[in-house]
Formats: sequence, structure tokens, C-alpha cells
Amino acid sequence: MNLLERTIAAIRPIDAKWIEAAERHQLELTKPPKSLGRLEEIANRCAAIRGTLSPTADRPRIVVFAADHGVCAEGVSAYPQEVTAQMVANYLRGGAAINALARAGEIELKVVDVGVLVPLADVDGLISRRASAGTRNFCQEPAMTEAEMHLALGTGIDLAAEAAAEGCDLLGFGEMGIGNTTAASAVTAALTGESVASAVGRGTGVDDEGLARKRGAIERALALHAARLTSALGILQCVGGLEIAAMCGFCLGAAAHRVPVVTDGFIATSAAALAVQMCPAAAGYLFAAHQSIEPGHARLLAAIGQEPLLHLGMRLGEGTGAALAIGIVQAAVAAFTQMATFAGAGVSNR
Amino acid sequence: MNLLERTIAAIRPIDAKWIEAAERHQLELTKPPKSLGRLEEIANRCAAIRGTLSPTADRPRIVVFAADHGVCAEGVSAYPQEVTAQMVANYLRGGAAINALARAGEIELKVVDVGVLVPLADVDGLISRRASAGTRNFCQEPAMTEAEMHLALGTGIDLAAEAAAEGCDLLGFGEMGIGNTTAASAVTAALTGESVASAVGRGTGVDDEGLARKRGAIERALALHAARLTSALGILQCVGGLEIAAMCGFCLGAAAHRVPVVTDGFIATSAAALAVQMCPAAAGYLFAAHQSIEPGHARLLAAIGQEPLLHLGMRLGEGTGAALAIGIVQAAVAAFTQMATFAGAGVSNR
Repeated sequence: MNLLERTIAAIRPIDAKWIEAAERHQLELTKPPKSLGRLEEIANRCAAIRGTLSPTADRPRIVVFAADHGVCAEGVSAYPQEVTAQMVANYLRGGAAINALARAGEIELKVVDVGVLVPLADVDGLISRRASAGTRNFCQEPAMTEAEMHLALGTGIDLAAEAAAEGCDLLGFGEMGIGNTTAASAVTAALTGESVASAVGRGTGVDDEGLARKRGAIERALALHAARLTSALGILQCVGGLEIAAMCGFCLGAAAHRVPVVTDGFIATSAAALAVQMCPAAAGYLFAAHQSIEPGHARLLAAIGQEPLLHLGMRLGEGTGAALAIGIVQAAVAAFTQMATFAGAGVSNR
Repeated sequence: MNLLERTIAAIRPIDAKWIEAAERHQLELTKPPKSLGRLEEIANRCAAIRGTLSPTADRPRIVVFAADHGVCAEGVSAYPQEVTAQMVANYLRGGAAINALARAGEIELKVVDVGVLVPLADVDGLISRRASAGTRNFCQEPAMTEAEMHLALGTGIDLAAEAAAEGCDLLGFGEMGIGNTTAASAVTAALTGESVASAVGRGTGVDDEGLARKRGAIERALALHAARLTSALGILQCVGGLEIAAMCGFCLGAAAHRVPVVTDGFIATSAAALAVQMCPAAAGYLFAAHQSIEPGHARLLAAIGQEPLLHLGMRLGEGTGAALAIGIVQAAVAAFTQMATFAGAGVSNR
């Protein structure tokens, strides 16, 4: 077996007995039954993931995966392609939205170059795991070779394993890659059968002509690669991205190591949906951070069977949604593990 | 003028020029325009409230106001009335949901007795500002005297002033009081014209018979006090609660001192809606934490012109929704004040 196959083989469905034990524990805590709403559901699942009624969530980490996209040659993005590398440099200097949100939430942040077009020079703290210098233009050929795809998947798997080994008990992930809403939209259409018209939005903000080019490029790519789009791996290789592959691997790695993992926006969720397609049991380890305004996002969330925790109209990526949702998961776990019981606190139950 | 009138007179509408200045600043930050969604709207309003493009939100405080309700004599709650005092003791020992959530969010917590039935003995840290030993049964007489109401309003005003003087830059509030969804439902019906059938829910979980008793009690109270329910103060005095009065004062005090203030659930929002009825400009200082499953809550949120930040199916009160929303507001302010600009970071704009 290769690394991907070994990782998938290590993933066990979360245990319904732990969910039931957690539900019983919730009833003993000093609050009306189910009055913490979704916080209870979150904590119960964390208990099941970790296999304990004393789960922790105080070592959170977000990993941001960056890569470039050959499909930018089709004029699908509102921003020039060099912005990918410029934003990676911004992350490493601490000036991006994800830096501010990770600091606010006291979340450790790692930044990985999975295939930015031109390697960044002189940047401390960057994890360089370049599978190639960006993807190829998938309107003309598969976005990556099978070997490149497995390198990128392995990067995500490795980073999840590393986080687990270093004691992280709650993970999140995000991405940067100019052009990657085009790749994620193509993945969404191929994976869910959603029409291109309804799966494709404006990403970072293309105008009407840009949107038409984006839809056209995806239609052509789906036609070109139709024979290969019958499996998650075929979809990922033909119309995905290196950072999408790495995030897919990260989801699977987190599940294999029994660590709860929070998705981010549309592109991150496309990676999570590929992971769930490869291994349905991985869904039990995933929490959906939020629902962005990208039209394909709701369909992907349905595909992974998750209700988003937040609805804040965000559409930035970078792990910004994950950073906010990690705070919610931590609160859920804190309530579950720190609250007094009716008996212990001398509070009358009904 | 009395304290309430002086407080209302000190409240100025937030300045649209600061909102515009903040919107311009958002466009310079290294992200696509409006891509942080509601986080941008939150930060812009915080900038306008504080009158600066460098607002802070790192000294948050939640104040929980507790009081008892004479209407419990009508059998409107699933829990015995002594639970109010028992839960206050639980807060002071750190064992309730709000304690866990405040700790998780590093939020300072204050607990105020505005009128628990029997005074708590031997509890360190309790702020005792008892306006009376709980309200009267409002099915038979006004819930409180005018003097008691003004004492409780003044308690909230004072605690907001104290928080502002101590450097708090973000406030939240919550409540505890067995029977107080009945009072909040009566306030909602009187204030918004919503029918009792649609304004009244199960609170902490009354059964069908309890729900019928609750609705019946509110119908009788609204009929008994009809002539007095034409103003916010009349509604508050006749069918409100001491903690509702204190929270109403807290909203007004926060607005007078130009501190953003986060509401909590249904009961807290009934207090905020009374404050906005007394002083419409106070709405600009309010952020709605979440929308609970209590049926009257949506109507109250519309009355104060706020979209809730969270939808997590919570219905606990105590400030638990405020604690989660404070984290969102802090993240919004962090992004606004800490992000690099396109020019400063050397990132290409569109």
C-alpha cells in the first residue's frame, strides 16, 4: 500500500458508544437539556473522536497550504498570479487576515508552499514541500501528474501526523492560490454532478466577463477529462490543485490520528469532500467552519454531511473561517469538560 | 433629570463618517473587498462607536444579572425557583456554562444579585445590588414599583459606567432568573404587538401544560396592565423583571460611554429592545450575539435592527451567547487593526 492507502486504512468510524456516553454526561451538567444547542453536538463528537469524556482542545493549529494554478492562463481571476507568492510572504510577516485571526484565537499557524509558481526566497518559517511549480492549465492537460498529486497528498498527511505527534488536539486548514476557486468549482461539479452554472461563483470578485471565462474554462476541462472524472483521485489529478490535494491529505491524516479537523471555505471544503469520497468514515472527524457565499459551497457541505457552524458571509479562505470555528469548538469542549453537575453543585434538577 | 434620563441624554448616534472612514480602510487591507463579510461590518461599527480607526477589544467583560420572578407562582417554569440562587452560587464557584465559556474566551465575568428571592450567604465575589426580593406576581399586580425599577435600571447603568471607567472596551451581558422567559415573552408581546401564541416558547423546557399555563398567565397580565403598557417603562415595570431592568440600564450605560455591547439570548434581547425603545440611538452600540430557538427572539432582533452573529441553536442565557459572540467581535477588530495594507505588504491589488 502507498501512503494514501495506508492512511485511509487507518481511519476508523467514530464510535457511537462514545456519542451516547457524551450525551448522558451532557444531561448531568447544570443546564437545561440540550440548551447549549450545537455546542453539545460538537463536544459529543470531540469526545467520540478522542475516545474520552475528557477531550481537550487547547493545542489548536491551522495549516495554510499555498500553490499556483495553470488555469490562470484562461483569465479566470481578478488578481494577478504573483499575488499567491506575495500573500505567502504576507502570512510569514504576520500581516494577513489569518494572522490576525489566529493571534486573536491563540492558534498556532503553519504555512506550506506546496507549489507556488516561483519559490519564495528569504522567508523564515515557510515549510517548503513543493510538488511542482504550480499546476498545469487543466483546460489543456491534467492539472498534475499522478506522482505530483501523491507528493501533495503526502504533504498534507505528513503535516497532520506531525501535528498529532506534537500534541495538537484540534486542527484547521486553509489555502491560498490565485485561480483556485476555478479548480474547486471544477472539483465540485465533477464530484457532485452540480451544473457548472450553479457551482461556479465570482471567487475573489471577477466581473461578468471573468465569470463567463471561468465557466467556459471549467466546461471545457470537464469535457476534456470526462473519462477520468469517475473517481476522487481522477478528479483531483485532472482538475484539482496541489493545495487541494494537500488539504485532502490533511483531512485524511487528521482522521487517521483521531484529531478533530475544521474545514474552511469553499476551496478547503472541496478538498474535504474529496477526502470523504475516498474514505466516508473521515466525515466523522470533520467540522465545517462556515458557509461562504460561493454557490458551490452548500452542495459540498451536503456532500460531507456537515452543517456549517458559522454564517458570516465570509469568502476569503486562508483558514479564516477555521480560525473562528476553532474558537467555537474550544468553547464547546470547555463547557463539556469544565461544567459542574447538578449533583456536584447542589442545583435542583427538574 | 434622574439617572436614566441623564444616561439617555448622553447617548449620541454613532457617526456615519467613521463608518465611511472604516469602509475606506477595509479596502486597503490585503484581502478582496468585503471578503471578511460580517466581520467587516462589525469592525466598522466598533470603529464608529469608539471614534477611531484603531479600536481595541482586548478588555472584554460580561455581567450576569440574577433575579427572581413572582410569576413563578403560576407554574410557568420547569425548574423550582430556588434554582436561581443555586445557579448564582454555581457561577461564583465557576461551574456553570458561562464560566467555562468566559474562561475559554478570556472574558472577565461579574455576577450581580439584582433581586434573588433569598439573599445568598457566604459567597465571595457576588455584587449585591438587590432592588427587592424578586418581583411580584404580575398576574396580580405590577412586577415592581417604580422605585424598584429605577434601582434596577441604575444598577445596570452603574455597572456599565464602572466597566468603562476600568478600561473595558467590549461588554456583554446575560441573566439568570427562573421564570424569566415568561417575563421576557410578556415584554415582547407588549413591545412588538406579537401575539402571545407566537411570542411564547418553552423556555428551559416546560411541557404542554406548562406552556399553556405560561401563555394563560401572560394573557391575563397583558389584560390586567393594558393601560400601562403604552411605554417601555410601563411595560418594564408591569411585566418585566429586575434583571431585565438592570440589563436595559446596562445597554443604555454602555451606549452612553461609547462601549460596544453584545446581547445574549431571548431575555437579554428583551432588555435591549426596551433600551432601544427608550433611546433608538442605543441600537448603534448593540451587537446581537445569536438567535435562540425561543419564538419571540427573532421579532425582538428585528425590533433592535440587528442580525444575530451566531445561529447555534442555543437557549441557555447566562451570557453564553455573548461569550461566543465576543470572540467574533474581537476577531473582527483584530483583522481591522492588525492587517497589512496592499501598499505596505507589496501585494498587487486588482
